[in-house]
Amino acid sequence: MPRPIVFLSDFGLEDEFVGVCHGVLNRIAPDSRVIDLTHGVPAQDVLRGALMLAESIPYMPEDAVYLAVVDPGVGMARADLAVRTRSGNHLVGPDNGVLSLSWERLGGAERAVDIRSPEVTSPVVSSTFHGRDVFAPAAAHLATGMPIEVMGPRLDTGALVTVRVAEPHVRPGRVRAQVLDRDRFGNVQLNVRHRHLEAAALHRVRELELRISGRSRRLPRATAFGEVEEGQCAAIFDSRGWFALICNGGSAAEALGLAVGDGVVLLEPDAGG
Amino acid sequence: MPRPIVFLSDFGLEDEFVGVCHGVLNRIAPDSRVIDLTHGVPAQDVLRGALMLAESIPYMPEDAVYLAVVDPGVGMARADLAVRTRSGNHLVGPDNGVLSLSWERLGGAERAVDIRSPEVTSPVVSSTFHGRDVFAPAAAHLATGMPIEVMGPRLDTGALVTVRVAEPHVRPGRVRAQVLDRDRFGNVQLNVRHRHLEAAALHRVRELELRISGRSRRLPRATAFGEVEEGQCAAIFDSRGWFALICNGGSAAEALGLAVGDGVVLLEPDAGG
Amino acid sequence: MPRPIVFLSDFGLEDEFVGVCHGVLNRIAPDSRVIDLTHGVPAQDVLRGALMLAESIPYMPEDAVYLAVVDPGVGMARADLAVRTRSGNHLVGPDNGVLSLSWERLGGAERAVDIRSPEVTSPVVSSTFHGRDVFAPAAAHLATGMPIEVMGPRLDTGALVTVRVAEPHVRPGRVRAQVLDRDRFGNVQLNVRHRHLEAAALHRVRELELRISGRSRRLPRATAFGEVEEGQCAAIFDSRGWFALICNGGSAAEALGLAVGDGVVLLEPDAGG
Repeated sequence: MPRPIVFLSDFGLEDEFVGVCHGVLNRIAPDSRVIDLTHGVPAQDVLRGALMLAESIPYMPEDAVYLAVVDPGVGMARADLAVRTRSGNHLVGPDNGVLSLSWERLGGAERAVDIRSPEVTSPVVSSTFHGRDVFAPAAAHLATGMPIEVMGPRLDTGALVTVRVAEPHVRPGRVRAQVLDRDRFGNVQLNVRHRHLEAAALHRVRELELRISGRSRRLPRATAFGEVEEGQCAAIFDSRGWFALICNGGSAAEALGLAVGDGVVLLEPDAGG
Repeated sequence: MPRPIVFLSDFGLEDEFVGVCHGVLNRIAPDSRVIDLTHGVPAQDVLRGALMLAESIPYMPEDAVYLAVVDPGVGMARADLAVRTRSGNHLVGPDNGVLSLSWERLGGAERAVDIRSPEVTSPVVSSTFHGRDVFAPAAAHLATGMPIEVMGPRLDTGALVTVRVAEPHVRPGRVRAQVLDRDRFGNVQLNVRHRHLEAAALHRVRELELRISGRSRRLPRATAFGEVEEGQCAAIFDSRGWFALICNGGSAAEALGLAVGDGVVLLEPDAGG
Repeated sequence: MPRPIVFLSDFGLEDEFVGVCHGVLNRIAPDSRVIDLTHGVPAQDVLRGALMLAESIPYMPEDAVYLAVVDPGVGMARADLAVRTRSGNHLVGPDNGVLSLSWERLGGAERAVDIRSPEVTSPVVSSTFHGRDVFAPAAAHLATGMPIEVMGPRLDTGALVTVRVAEPHVRPGRVRAQVLDRDRFGNVQLNVRHRHLEAAALHRVRELELRISGRSRRLPRATAFGEVEEGQCAAIFDSRGWFALICNGGSAAEALGLAVGDGVVLLEPDAGG
């Protein structure tokens, strides 16, 4: 039975790029289901793409082939990766780290190749659209059972490019964090996990002090959007397990003046931090 | 044969929320086709989502399971609904009215449960993303034939939350209406059906007077976009059966200065209304 | 085996128009795969839709039925086309040229009909949404094997509406071009193919002079995005085979002040052109 293909990119949906890749997938693997994880990764934002892919894995079919194309270096020297993980999954995409958080979640990279076989790639490979000419064909062939070994020369899995989320700066009573993402609703995701709050002994504090660009404000903790009164903001663990700032009925990003990459300091109120 | 799943939400497509739900659906019901009705419902706009879903039913597969997630109250006390209609269809979504116009179209709600069974929901249910943790699993299980009765405690169908489109204010020669929606092309949909124009004896008038924010203008009736000259505006029954204001080659919302919720009075010209 | 359907439109994804058409396709051809090429064609831009469709054909399944709805004249006198090409493919859409570049690529139009059969169209055909009421049903019936001959009265294939990309003005050392498109990344596509540069003897020039609104600037040629230094711009053949202006890490459309339809003159630097 052909395996499903999970497809993520920064192509957007205004142009025909995603649709063209679907055509290529369908020609090679007409019976594979394609799950579009998202094509709204901000243009060329490898880390955001890597995070979205890796965090979605627990919800995807177990035998999925992953196709991730966020590729600012297309046409340059970097390898066109196909990776088999210890879990038996396959990942396809550029060797720029976009796949790296995913193979870590899938037991590590067991085998990697540079996709070069003319049995896989388009007869003519453009220098600008490897999604269409290299990655989609490779993902489709993997979905139909082609072994990764025949796709191209073997690569040293220890030498593949990786990315990493910046760790927040933690000390007792204080976490210096960064904005990782904001979603459609204006919710602001910080690079903070429960363990960071624990390490700072802030995990049981019912109200936090936030310092943003030198200004202070207080935010209560909440566990659901609905606990927060209309027009009020709060801090919550979001559905991806990140600590997030939200406002009921509005955009926290706008209310707090925060954009991706901005710094936020979390403190115990009146601790003088 | 597994049933198709019709999926509507306000998640947008920039983030991976929709894709994650597709993964969950695929894990449980890998052979069900998923039809994405739209994920562009304005954020948290329950009534708009309810309308889009209900009006699309005549065009959907007859045996469809409907999954609708517009859920400002996620994580709060409201029930997570699965509904069987007298037509034999199933609807899944929050008990906030987003499903109510649909069960009315499908013969009424015959049985409703609060989705609680651990055989249905995720092992850990987040307080912020029941689309992923409760509603998608329930829709997928219904599509594969699980009976609604085993999904959770029975609810009184008469006590479910409903929504309703505001009726226009009708008197002879005059309809006081409201803007329900505007689409991508800037067409403005009013809360007016043919029966309202009939009741006001305006259904045969070839030109209407419109009062918007105290200002008057005249608009001809039309039956097709192409009848309207380039740059001109007109009033027409749209493909959903609502009375709409359109401009050929431009946005009626911009030309007439109208947004969702605004008031519009329709009159017979020179009737002094 | 039911044939796949390739679907392009200018409906956008905010509304439920695309989803409703998917429902109609599924009711008639539940086993056909639908490939959404894009629904982001700029509203009512027939030429852009025609180009996107035609250029995607080499990547689509060979037995595909093409459904293209960019339809400013919906409800007016123009025909609702179903076309069989010499390649054996089928195309469905309005007779306004949106299909014409595609049937040219597929060997020419062998047979065309005006879709009128009540066995194909909706019981009630609206005057505003033939995508739902005429074109989607026709595409689905073709995908399941209905012969085009029974769908409606035959049309003279020589009298169908066609569109054409404006040719650039070429003379030795000089190409006067036009902006055809800009994509999500801000890359600017010109109406220039390799043969035009050859005819102007500009194909081997390593740097070009560009005149835009009377101002001059120089741009190097490149073959991959990554060759261009961060913040620099260059000219490149894009993945669709068009000559394009790009900037590494930014939008060429913004950097060069170019929009669709604008004129650009390409010259050999210091040729005095």
